[in-house]
Amino acid sequence: PLLGMGSHWINMKPLLEKLVDGGHRVTVLVPSASLFMNSSEPSRFHYERVESSLSIEVMEKFMEEFLHFSIYEMEHMGYVQMYLRFMELFRINLKFALGNLDGVVKSEEVMMKLKRGNFDVLLADPIMPGSELVADILGIPLVYSVRFTMAHHFERYCGQVPAPPSFVPGAMSKLTDRMDFWERVWNFIFYAVQDYFLSGTGKPTSACELMGKADIWLIRTYWDFDFPRPLLPNFKYVGGIHCKPAKPLPKDIEEFVQSSGDAGIVIFTLGSFIRNITTEKGNMIASALAQIPQKVLWKYSGQAPETLGPNTKIFNWIPQNDLLGHPKTRAFVTHGGSNGIYEAIYHGVPMVGIPMFADQPHNLIHMKAKGVAVIDAINTVINDKSYKENAMRLSSIHHDKPLSPLDEGVFWIEFAIRNNGAKHLRVQAHELTWYQYHCLDVFAFLLALILTIVFIFIKACSFCLRKCCGRKTKTKSE
Amino acid sequence: PLLGMGSHWINMKPLLEKLVDGGHRVTVLVPSASLFMNSSEPSRFHYERVESSLSIEVMEKFMEEFLHFSIYEMEHMGYVQMYLRFMELFRINLKFALGNLDGVVKSEEVMMKLKRGNFDVLLADPIMPGSELVADILGIPLVYSVRFTMAHHFERYCGQVPAPPSFVPGAMSKLTDRMDFWERVWNFIFYAVQDYFLSGTGKPTSACELMGKADIWLIRTYWDFDFPRPLLPNFKYVGGIHCKPAKPLPKDIEEFVQSSGDAGIVIFTLGSFIRNITTEKGNMIASALAQIPQKVLWKYSGQAPETLGPNTKIFNWIPQNDLLGHPKTRAFVTHGGSNGIYEAIYHGVPMVGIPMFADQPHNLIHMKAKGVAVIDAINTVINDKSYKENAMRLSSIHHDKPLSPLDEGVFWIEFAIRNNGAKHLRVQAHELTWYQYHCLDVFAFLLALILTIVFIFIKACSFCLRKCCGRKTKTKSE
Repeated sequence: PLLGMGSHWINMKPLLEKLVDGGHRVTVLVPSASLFMNSSEPSRFHYERVESSLSIEVMEKFMEEFLHFSIYEMEHMGYVQMYLRFMELFRINLKFALGNLDGVVKSEEVMMKLKRGNFDVLLADPIMPGSELVADILGIPLVYSVRFTMAHHFERYCGQVPAPPSFVPGAMSKLTDRMDFWERVWNFIFYAVQDYFLSGTGKPTSACELMGKADIWLIRTYWDFDFPRPLLPNFKYVGGIHCKPAKPLPKDIEEFVQSSGDAGIVIFTLGSFIRNITTEKGNMIASALAQIPQKVLWKYSGQAPETLGPNTKIFNWIPQNDLLGHPKTRAFVTHGGSNGIYEAIYHGVPMVGIPMFADQPHNLIHMKAKGVAVIDAINTVINDKSYKENAMRLSSIHHDKPLSPLDEGVFWIEFAIRNNGAKHLRVQAHELTWYQYHCLDVFAFLLALILTIVFIFIKACSFCLRKCCGRKTKTKSE
Repeated sequence: PLLGMGSHWINMKPLLEKLVDGGHRVTVLVPSASLFMNSSEPSRFHYERVESSLSIEVMEKFMEEFLHFSIYEMEHMGYVQMYLRFMELFRINLKFALGNLDGVVKSEEVMMKLKRGNFDVLLADPIMPGSELVADILGIPLVYSVRFTMAHHFERYCGQVPAPPSFVPGAMSKLTDRMDFWERVWNFIFYAVQDYFLSGTGKPTSACELMGKADIWLIRTYWDFDFPRPLLPNFKYVGGIHCKPAKPLPKDIEEFVQSSGDAGIVIFTLGSFIRNITTEKGNMIASALAQIPQKVLWKYSGQAPETLGPNTKIFNWIPQNDLLGHPKTRAFVTHGGSNGIYEAIYHGVPMVGIPMFADQPHNLIHMKAKGVAVIDAINTVINDKSYKENAMRLSSIHHDKPLSPLDEGVFWIEFAIRNNGAKHLRVQAHELTWYQYHCLDVFAFLLALILTIVFIFIKACSFCLRKCCGRKTKTKSE
């Protein structure tokens, strides 16, 4: 049996499905205030409802506030103001997480069920803290599924993965791995500020200690998406875990796609959060899309803009993955969510990025650096062949692995079950203090030693010198 | 086609065999002064003889000297003397490598053949330097097969893999990953001395630059043998590449093994280098072996000692892997060569170590730390159950991988062929200077900035103060 808990549900689900295929029993803890998990839909998992100490209305209000802040407020803010607001939201998120956690560890009923369940492993996303504590109480291995944390703070401090700021750009810093001097200064400050802030929340040491016990960290990225960096034996890179081959399109969509002829199609979506945009913005986008020779499939649930061209069709819902895998697809206009980007990588489709919020700018900067995306310029991506070539290259990098990300994820979860954790993959760095890790105690000792030797040498010399001179003086005075 | 060159032949061969199975053509460069490669034996590889500028007699004499030094001289030497002698041998080894290299790059005929061969990749062991240059001249991807280099110097400096001396014991330092303060001091010094010495040989920068271009580093160890440590995306751990299931034993050996009853057997070998030991040592070993209840198979080509017990049988040659995989095997008495150790790990057999020279003490310290070997004490390993349990645990760790080491090695070699190298796995650290890597330029800048601000602030304050006081004084004097 296997215990699931967490938020980034889309990436967890294929893993759990595959584990059920392999004969595992899976229990999913669903907080009552969850916005994305639906415990009533028929499923092969056992859902266990957990009473959050906060209501779903509060959660919804927060989510709305967060979106409004990210999309509309942020651009009018200064850096410091933005940062403070962001950290406030971070604190609210922590409150929600602790609210969900209360529903688990403070509920005798739930804890009793979990203890009796004899679970083999706990799978969790550390974006919602708390799973560490549950795994620790139950005494079972913990496997993380991680996208990233701000500036890789938790991966570095709790997971002990080395990340020299000279060539590992902090997550969300909007930098690539090729940094000039000023970018390295900025990256260094970015790490430092983040570390300073996060070391101030509660008691990071003990939380970090618990996080550091995680047996396997499944990192939802790979070297097709991310920049190569040092890793540890228990960090497994499984980006694109949810990707799958394209299925045939529904008849009406296939007909529209085929009508595009040699020009092909463009897929346009701003993700599931953006249901409405202002009339002004809608008209602007629509008239821009009207100018390209491709047919455009626009996923949008708001009202059709007036300037909509004959080449553009609005859909309430599109089979995004099947469209991305269609041979007629020329470009993917995206807000830059990591799931959509991975589907484009999987199928080798170049991208146009219109980043809105959260990790979207970060993601699109990666794609731009790898030469498969431009930001806000659709014609370039279609007419400049290098983007398609690079997209095909990334796609081949994505597929050219000994194991698919899904198989790799499942392998390491089952590994943690078979071996009751993964202690032999854990570096000893976890047992060191920060000054021991950086050998500062060794430095201090060697420096003291050298200084002592120099001191003794000088003293001895001066002593000898005085003796000699003393004798000489005596001799002279005789 | 694929080009092989190098010395650690036993581990290269299974890789090349498997590549030939997969339809690749393999050419092996054999130096005329090679002691271990036999280009005349029938094989599925194409052997290309390379005229070393040094004769095989010189090579043999050096090897003998090296063995004599390692086994007989070393124990009577002080640390400094030993170190100097070792470095002298290192320099001679380099001379041999350059002698072999001459036979390749300075021979028009060989270079012509290599250029016309249209090879896809060069596979090499960096213990014999030179392959980097050949790959660079031919403009083809380079895949390394590496056991380790002293203190991981080349992996760290040329491969850019991070190795904090606080928890990564330098190779050959005889330390584990659990170090107390004094051991960390020693490890730190060990790294420093090694780095100082190796940075002095020739022009390390340009050699390192060439080595840094290696696309894939196949490291012949894994977390069953080694301590977990940071790695890089292009470092693949393939320890145990030569291991395979046991085949049935020859009839006479099987009969002797079965005669051991429940007590089981002990396998005793000091490797293929030790053909003779002194009569005194032989008698000592034989009488010790006579005292255990197990039957002993002793691989030895010298004269049978007088004190040989009835339970011990001397063999000129033993099917070591098949014996290690036999259910009656209780312990493996070994000199601690890494190939034999990996076969014992593969089959889950506890070990008794009698380290002789080279990396043998290093290897056995790893096995001791993992609880599967003792050094010089056969009864403990057989009677204390923890050794067998730990051996079985290591064996399960060894087998519990998504891919076998051989398949993994072959995968990444073919990967380098398919993708014309592996540039997307290469960290940007290769492009940085050492002070950039450690952010020292950033530190210096930020420090200067802070000092300037403090300086201006103090100046401003003192200026204001003087103004104020000046006015006050004036006011007073009015």
